[in-house]
Amino acid sequence: MLLGSHLDSVPNGGRYDGALGVVAALHVLLAVQASGLQLPLALEAIDFTDEEGTLVGLLGSESLTGKLTLESLRSPRGGREALLAGLERAGLNETELVLARRDPASLVAFLELHIEQGPLLERAAVQIGLVTGIVGARSFSLLFRGLAGHAGTTPMDARRDAGLAAAVFTVAANELVVRDFPGCVATVGDIRLEPGAFNVIPGSARVAIECRSLDLAPLDALESALLREAHAAAAMHALGVEATPVGRWEPTPLDADLRALVGRAASGLGLETMELSSGAGHDAQALAAVVPSGMIFVPSDGGVSHDPREHTSWAGCVNGANTLLRAALELSGSYAD
Amino acid sequence: MLLGSHLDSVPNGGRYDGALGVVAALHVLLAVQASGLQLPLALEAIDFTDEEGTLVGLLGSESLTGKLTLESLRSPRGGREALLAGLERAGLNETELVLARRDPASLVAFLELHIEQGPLLERAAVQIGLVTGIVGARSFSLLFRGLAGHAGTTPMDARRDAGLAAAVFTVAANELVVRDFPGCVATVGDIRLEPGAFNVIPGSARVAIECRSLDLAPLDALESALLREAHAAAAMHALGVEATPVGRWEPTPLDADLRALVGRAASGLGLETMELSSGAGHDAQALAAVVPSGMIFVPSDGGVSHDPREHTSWAGCVNGANTLLRAALELSGSYAD
Repeated sequence: MLLGSHLDSVPNGGRYDGALGVVAALHVLLAVQASGLQLPLALEAIDFTDEEGTLVGLLGSESLTGKLTLESLRSPRGGREALLAGLERAGLNETELVLARRDPASLVAFLELHIEQGPLLERAAVQIGLVTGIVGARSFSLLFRGLAGHAGTTPMDARRDAGLAAAVFTVAANELVVRDFPGCVATVGDIRLEPGAFNVIPGSARVAIECRSLDLAPLDALESALLREAHAAAAMHALGVEATPVGRWEPTPLDADLRALVGRAASGLGLETMELSSGAGHDAQALAAVVPSGMIFVPSDGGVSHDPREHTSWAGCVNGANTLLRAALELSGSYAD
Repeated sequence: MLLGSHLDSVPNGGRYDGALGVVAALHVLLAVQASGLQLPLALEAIDFTDEEGTLVGLLGSESLTGKLTLESLRSPRGGREALLAGLERAGLNETELVLARRDPASLVAFLELHIEQGPLLERAAVQIGLVTGIVGARSFSLLFRGLAGHAGTTPMDARRDAGLAAAVFTVAANELVVRDFPGCVATVGDIRLEPGAFNVIPGSARVAIECRSLDLAPLDALESALLREAHAAAAMHALGVEATPVGRWEPTPLDADLRALVGRAASGLGLETMELSSGAGHDAQALAAVVPSGMIFVPSDGGVSHDPREHTSWAGCVNGANTLLRAALELSGSYAD
């Protein structure tokens, strides 16, 4: 049985995202060892490299599951040079990475403790989150093409303002998801206007949009509705718009039996639990493809993450680690029967 | 009597903006000389340097009117080094620039022929525009401060999205000016989101907004209304907003008698005229402070300007030059009486 998470972080990130799950896994092993218990299956702790995608994203976990190919390493997110330099520092090469695949038959389960990175557990004052699945995501780069013009001499009714179309789209996308897609999120993360000067009507606008949902049907519907809004915003101002797909991840349900087992473990410790989905990607989504996988969330203060202010109380960390330990023992126990 | 405009251009600009007025002024002088006419006042052609503001903006015309001071040359728009290098290339220094002031008593009028840089004459199929004045402008840099957050894990109702506030403001500013301020313009020329990534809710947004009007009362009202919209957009998403003034130019009316004289000159040539304001700044706005000043506009194709596609038909150029010549002769004639 594999327990763990990752130790890498985003630039200027926090101290809990990933690290908590690795440290807790080690403590589970130490506690079992100290207790002298003889378990019917091996507990292993793991630290997956590059979960955050400085180089590739889910690099360690997808190596273990065999999803990583030489093909997929050809144009890594962080650049080819950075990947090769990183491998050299680690004394590895690409072939070894691809050959790191582990036979799934040697694993009965993967369990990952992680901070929530959102505000739901804190809001509900619940100590343990039972993660139902990891959301799917779709992202697009939208390019609105209008006509640059002199901001002083071009009357309002003679404009084809690409910045205005981008703004209309941004407002409409937010209204759409709030009104029609409960539980989903959509985000305009960036807007770039050209030429981008006080006295020039923007001739083009590039918009970074993404949406996420735990369920495939609303995710597909939201994606289509967002693209319709982009075309409507463009048409309103006599512009063209092109949508270039950037990322596409399908929703990953986590194992229901393992979730029920974690829930019993937490309840046995007197902790309150609630089910929730993960809006962020995790190593568990790679593992879920080949082995029953589960995640345990503990509250993060204010839902803040990927920021130096990221914080989870000591009690929260201990609750998570104890739940991980008890769940591991329960699962082992089921094999002893 | 001074006739002219400027020969400098914006980067990647056109061939008519400014140049037409200088070349036409020279042709007026050549025509008068060729005719052997003896006029009761001197006609002078002038090319003002740096109208567009590569270095300072209205550098030549404000030198002539005495508005330029050593103070105002201290932090020029194009940077201090570029200004000093430009002066050295021209064999000048700052003191000479400031001392270039011309006694206004030595001038009876300034008349500038220029392309419209907007679509109004072309739309109305009118050959000559009689410019009533040059609009005033106000520009601000708005900084919306929200809270960056994970685009996947932060529910829609827990966001303080600065990019969304910037978009709401952009849409509202456009609606406001179209609905309540006929004849005025307002433009969001740039939006910059931080950190500006697909998967991060923007924590801050910087917006470049400017507005223009020929009349002071609506300009003041529009400025106030835009700042109210900025605060409303910020309040809607629990953000802060700071407005930093960037530019402020008051409207400049041009001389009514000179305009009537130009109108008679054009009509005498069988040309149709209409009154319109200039949405862009011109050397005439500097001259108007010290001497009766007027501007003649000719149509520019599609209203395109500050672009290599800028074009005015040969007939349009000739109409403008002939109107300039006839207006100069009429004004001279009035001094002969």
